[in-house]
This record gives sequence, structure tokens and C-alpha cells, in this order.
Amino acid sequence: MAISFTQRLETVCRDKNNSLCIGLDIDPDKFPSELDTSLSGMESFGKDVIDGTIDFCPVYKPNFAFFERFGSQGFALLERLVAHINGRAIVIADAKRGDIGNTSHQYASAILDGMGCDAITISPYMGRDAIKPFIENAAKGVFILAVTSNSSASEIQEHENQSNPLYKKVIQIAMELNTNENIGLVVGATKTEVMQEVRELSNGMPWLIPGVGTQGGDLETALKISHKSGIGIINVSRGILYAGDGSLNDVVQSAKNYTEKIRSMVWNPISC
Amino acid sequence: MAISFTQRLETVCRDKNNSLCIGLDIDPDKFPSELDTSLSGMESFGKDVIDGTIDFCPVYKPNFAFFERFGSQGFALLERLVAHINGRAIVIADAKRGDIGNTSHQYASAILDGMGCDAITISPYMGRDAIKPFIENAAKGVFILAVTSNSSASEIQEHENQSNPLYKKVIQIAMELNTNENIGLVVGATKTEVMQEVRELSNGMPWLIPGVGTQGGDLETALKISHKSGIGIINVSRGILYAGDGSLNDVVQSAKNYTEKIRSMVWNPISC
Repeated sequence: MAISFTQRLETVCRDKNNSLCIGLDIDPDKFPSELDTSLSGMESFGKDVIDGTIDFCPVYKPNFAFFERFGSQGFALLERLVAHINGRAIVIADAKRGDIGNTSHQYASAILDGMGCDAITISPYMGRDAIKPFIENAAKGVFILAVTSNSSASEIQEHENQSNPLYKKVIQIAMELNTNENIGLVVGATKTEVMQEVRELSNGMPWLIPGVGTQGGDLETALKISHKSGIGIINVSRGILYAGDGSLNDVVQSAKNYTEKIRSMVWNPISC
Repeated sequence: MAISFTQRLETVCRDKNNSLCIGLDIDPDKFPSELDTSLSGMESFGKDVIDGTIDFCPVYKPNFAFFERFGSQGFALLERLVAHINGRAIVIADAKRGDIGNTSHQYASAILDGMGCDAITISPYMGRDAIKPFIENAAKGVFILAVTSNSSASEIQEHENQSNPLYKKVIQIAMELNTNENIGLVVGATKTEVMQEVRELSNGMPWLIPGVGTQGGDLETALKISHKSGIGIINVSRGILYAGDGSLNDVVQSAKNYTEKIRSMVWNPISC
């Protein structure tokens, strides 16, 4: 049997002694004044960030919105950045797709096969039919939105009562579908009050954890609970890409600082 | 105050005496053997379908998956097709987006402003923060997934009990946010058992209705209930694009047949 996505993810993280994910939300409006804000400048910036961090960073997560914003040319830039990573790290397409089976098949074909991403984020609102096309190939994976980090998430995700909120149903579906060992969950770092229970319900399943940094989530709690069984991928986007004075040096240093924090909590605590 | 998206939609439908939406799920694998299956062939096919139906068809709905499948070149083709419609009909981007506010802002910028679509489909799993960036401009709209047509939808959308299922919460949020009159709902034509109640809860709000045709939804029930207050946009994709022998003549004839059925039920019953 082929190596599953979850095994691949764990291997890369173990090899790099790290579970940091750099979120590629490349936004030229936030560039320091000396950087070129054209698509070509975005490409150079993205490649420099990747090349400056890939020796120690196991996962990158391009946020599709920040590329689609520039239309087909932005989409082409995204393709080139994924190609530039070229298997040196896991790539999670942050696209939050999910549609009827026929359409989800097309998205899986586009993003996992065509573009070559390793995994994709999925919205579960349409139920398991919308997830299945993405998990047929065990080597590729999904991260299903379960408990997200934003403030208005709870009105939907905790519907309608504390004893049986929607997110528990989503986790149950994820566990039932996980026969290929290629499903993970999105669990926001701001949601510390439910993490312990989510970890018990999703035993061994990897988490993708947004919300650290700008959104104020608790890195240590998220890491320690997620790593009780499985692995917690800590995504940082703006907190790395626009760190310090925005120079490449400050960006790489911020990624190293997060790495050292993460290593000190759940990995081998050595410096980058 | 600018004319709202809902007013624009109703005006176009009234002017064309029709509420048909042709779903642009262009799939060269389904082309008849004499058609060119390259991107250029897809473009010709798409433009021919649009030009052959736009005199009587008020709404088109490109399904993003069928374009993203071909990467940045597919995305560029999608841009050209939207430009080709050029204001002659309403364009609903079937992209099912929805993310934290910062990211949703980028998607709104990409799809509504950049590409020039009139509306976009939205997944509500992340709550109202994920919807707000798409509705700031009253002239552009959203259709929020409420009750979808696929078979596994109910395990999420009816969570967790019949008296207060999740979709009612989604409708409540949609109604609360609709101060700009630019929000509609996606209500599957297969879900006839809940339509009457959904219509009462979403008084006056337009519906986008998938599931007629290949999925077996009930056209007449969906139309008559939706039109009790507001308008019901009936989407047909495969049932038009691959009708008969796949010739343009059969495609246009199928769109005319749907139009005449729709007109006979809720509009002025005249022939195309």
C-alpha cells in the first residue's frame, strides 16, 4: 500500500524537527517600500521566503485568495510557487473547497493532481459527498474545517447546543471517512476551551492550526494538546511574512523564532 | 442609493420573462466527437452557448472547478467568458468561497471586482464574518448555501434536530445581514419537503435552485414555492450543455424548452 498523506506529513515534520507551516498570504500592499509590488516582485518574494526557510520548515500553505485576486496571472504565479517548492516540503492548498461530487472531483483534479499540492482545506457544509473525491488517493490529503479561529465561527460550528455541537458531527464524519489515513482537521488556536475534547474525538488525526500570531491564539496550548496523539501543524502567515521591517532577513528570523518555540515545546529543542 | 443586486436580478429576469440559469460546467470529456476539446474549443463552445441563449436567458453560472481544472489557462478562459457576457446577463460565480474576513476580502476583490461577476456562492460554515466582505457593495450579491441538493447534505444542514436544524440558523443569519438587499440562498430542487418553510423564513429573498435535471429535482414545486415571495433562479447545467446529440442546435433547444416550462409556471407563457 502507498504511504498515506498522514504518514508523509509526519515524516517530513520529524525529518525537519518542526511542525511550522508558513502561510503564503502574499500581499504586495504590505510590502516594505523598497520591494517590487508587481506579480514578478511577488514571485521573487515568495521564492525568497521559501528558499530561506525550507531547510527547517516542513509545510507551506498558499492562500488561494491572495493569488486569485490577480486573476489568471495570479493563478499562474501560484502554480509556479508550488512548482518551486518541488517536493521539498508539504504544500497545503488553502482553498476551502467543497461541492457536489461531480464538482469536487474537478477541484481535486485541479489542485491535487494538476497543480501538485499535497493537501487541501475543505468546508464540510455539503456533507461527506463533497469530501470523498478529495481522499480517493491516499497519498494526498484534506484538512476539514472543524473549529475555526474566527470570532463568528461558533454560531454555526457550535449549533445548536453544547452537548452535541455541529463540529462534533464534522469530526465524526472525518473519522468515519479516514480509512486511507489522509484526513486532518482545521482547529483554530483561539479555541483552547474545546481542544482537549476535539483531540480525544480525533485521536491520531493531524491538525492544521491557524490563529497563532495576528489572531492571538495560544501556541503552547494548541501544540501540546494536538501532539498528544498525532501532530499539530502551526500555521503562521502575516506574523512571518511581514515581520520586523519586512526584509527577508527579518522574515526568515521570525520563522526561525517560531521554529525554536515549537521545537522547545514538542520536538527536539535545537536551534535552526 | 444604488440599485441593489436583488433589484438588478429581478429586473433582468422580468425583462427576459424568465428565471433560467445556465450552469457553465463546460466539460470537454462530454463533448460530442466532432467538437474541439482544447481550451480554444471550450471557449468557442462556451461563447456559442452564451450567444445562442442570451436573448432569453437572464443568468449564467460558471462553475469554477471546471475552469480551475485547467490551471491558470482555465482561469483565463473563465475571465474571457465572463467578459464575453459583458453585462448582457447576470453572472453568478459558483465558487463556494468563505474564509476569515481578511481572506474573504481578497476573494470578493478577485471575483466580484476583478473578474466582474455579479454574485458568488458562499459556504456559511465559518459564520457571518466570512460573508460580510462579499456584501459591502450593494450592487453585487451572494447566494449562501442553505439547503443543498446533494444526498449527504442533510447530515450537516439538518444538524441536529428537526425543530431547529442548522439551515434555519443559516437563513436567520442571511436575513439579518441583508440590509443591502443583496443576499440570496441556495436551495436544492430535491428538497421539496422543506421548501415551504424555507420560503417563509426567507421572505422576499432570491433563491438559486440547483438540482433540476440530472439530479432529479422537482422544477414545478421549486418554482412555485420560490416565486411566492421573491424569485427562484432555476439552474440547469448538464441538462442543457449536453442535451440531445450535443450540437449547438440541441443545446439551445434544451434551454428554450426549460424556458418555456419556466414561463408557463411563473412568467408570461410565451414561446422563445
